[in-house]
Amino acid sequence: MKVNELGEYPLVARLCERLQRVFGVDKRVLVGLGDDAAVLEVNGVRLILTIDTQLENAHFRLRWMPAFDLGWKSVAISISDVVAMGGKPVAALLGLGLTGEETVAFVDEFYEGAISICQSTGTLLLGGDTVRSPIGLMVSSIVVGVLEGEPIKRKGAQIDDAIIATGFVGEAAAGFWLLEEGVGDVATSPLLQRCVQKFRRPTPRTNALDILRSFPVHAAIDISDGLVIDAQRMAIASKVQIVLDLTQFPISEPLKEAAKVVGKDPLTLALTGGEDYELLLSVPSPVAKNLCQAMAEAGIPTHQIGVVSSAHSEGEVLGKNPDGSVSALKGGFQHF
Amino acid sequence: MKVNELGEYPLVARLCERLQRVFGVDKRVLVGLGDDAAVLEVNGVRLILTIDTQLENAHFRLRWMPAFDLGWKSVAISISDVVAMGGKPVAALLGLGLTGEETVAFVDEFYEGAISICQSTGTLLLGGDTVRSPIGLMVSSIVVGVLEGEPIKRKGAQIDDAIIATGFVGEAAAGFWLLEEGVGDVATSPLLQRCVQKFRRPTPRTNALDILRSFPVHAAIDISDGLVIDAQRMAIASKVQIVLDLTQFPISEPLKEAAKVVGKDPLTLALTGGEDYELLLSVPSPVAKNLCQAMAEAGIPTHQIGVVSSAHSEGEVLGKNPDGSVSALKGGFQHF
Repeated sequence: MKVNELGEYPLVARLCERLQRVFGVDKRVLVGLGDDAAVLEVNGVRLILTIDTQLENAHFRLRWMPAFDLGWKSVAISISDVVAMGGKPVAALLGLGLTGEETVAFVDEFYEGAISICQSTGTLLLGGDTVRSPIGLMVSSIVVGVLEGEPIKRKGAQIDDAIIATGFVGEAAAGFWLLEEGVGDVATSPLLQRCVQKFRRPTPRTNALDILRSFPVHAAIDISDGLVIDAQRMAIASKVQIVLDLTQFPISEPLKEAAKVVGKDPLTLALTGGEDYELLLSVPSPVAKNLCQAMAEAGIPTHQIGVVSSAHSEGEVLGKNPDGSVSALKGGFQHF
Repeated sequence: MKVNELGEYPLVARLCERLQRVFGVDKRVLVGLGDDAAVLEVNGVRLILTIDTQLENAHFRLRWMPAFDLGWKSVAISISDVVAMGGKPVAALLGLGLTGEETVAFVDEFYEGAISICQSTGTLLLGGDTVRSPIGLMVSSIVVGVLEGEPIKRKGAQIDDAIIATGFVGEAAAGFWLLEEGVGDVATSPLLQRCVQKFRRPTPRTNALDILRSFPVHAAIDISDGLVIDAQRMAIASKVQIVLDLTQFPISEPLKEAAKVVGKDPLTLALTGGEDYELLLSVPSPVAKNLCQAMAEAGIPTHQIGVVSSAHSEGEVLGKNPDGSVSALKGGFQHF
């Protein structure tokens, strides 16, 4: 059977199960494969480790991805994983595959972008590996973080929790479509530019860390492949059912405007678009308001977008529709 | 100017200089870019971090690289970097890019190989990232190690040091050529098979670690791009001149036999072939014999292949020829 036929989830599930059996029994492994990042205890220090790979024509196109933004985003998405575990990013390394036809200025700009996000998040960029990649440009980024206290896992959402998302999901996906359709760089509207910026230069929520550590957050995941799919990951890991309230789902003005331009439904972009690098949190309902208030004071918009509606579930994500009906939600990015 | 025109060394040198200026001043960075791996102090624990990328048709071909060996080698080469800094590997992550056309059995075998090298070196494989890679198969590996005491850098070789190499350099390159010429998998000679094995499944010298820590090793590097080029890296970093003794250079029987089959000069393969993942050490001459003895007792063959002949040098590597002449040595793998 081919990887394409099996699909991404079963493939990753097989791998998780295999690695868990061999290495998961080691007491140093606090969180193994199957979360945003791995957590490992080394000589009393809790480390968070994560790796992400971005490939030309799979994750980005050079015709619309400036080198600076590619460098920025490569590191930013790994930092987002560290934050989603409740950890502070410490260091980054980059593996850069170049065809050799790139200009030196391109490489300089790429690193300027990576340096910039590292500096703004207190992460040390320690370098990495540069190889010839005849098959196209590729970037692997690793970020190491430190964790004080317990990791915030995908697992842990409890019945009656409030489901909270930071930012406005969907904007990044709208930005992607603006770029794919060739209007991303010519659009002068600040609303459209915001979506493009959100896609090309996501800002990991490092300034939410103190808040994540001071509230009883039951579960967290970073929204990377799409809200529904990532909510489902949380639901499956937590063995709960999540109901998203679609009757008053937060759709930002930039998303509305961009969705109109690219001819797509803004709610669909918000639910399944992906590349948001926002946080999805499951917190006890009684503290939800205070958490959102603390986030607002730190400059981070949040919305309660749903609730954990039942436990002992297989991990469904449902949507409550404006007509009062409830339907199963699907969709999001799968590699295979 | 294009990357191809600038070349790998100037490209990496620019990057080193830039990152050193921004991040090197941070006291937590013990070793930044420009060595086998970065060394970082986090809450009192010294971590070694390294990343390597292997790309289809740049580093391997699927027609002669079994999935098991690809998984093994991807992690092994990063472990080798950690060992060359004097550290113990602790954990590994893999970023795997698949076209989707691979069989699930291929992916299973790949991970079996990675698990196998991790288990045999006490490294925890914590998983990683699987992405679709339409441009061909790729693997990024990161290994995190811990360091007790000071890192062993490329810098530090001193005049009159003995230059010692583990194993038999050149065998891996001979194995590569056997595979490229289509005879690697059909050759029944154990000598030829040894070269193929050395290339496809290198064994990092983790069992040399205690010895590296108990002798005053001035400098170390893992031989990955070729003996001469890696000796030159050590010479440049240490600002010394290294003279390799070519009058009695250790050429193994497998290398002799394989070189004959592929029609190449065995000494040239040894000096410039690369992919050895052996250690090159600079140690005070008076302890060289005892170090080699200790290595032998640990089952690691070593040879003194040269000396540090002068300080205040720009970093030349010279070869002492059988006719008594001395000539500058060049060659090895450069990506651009």
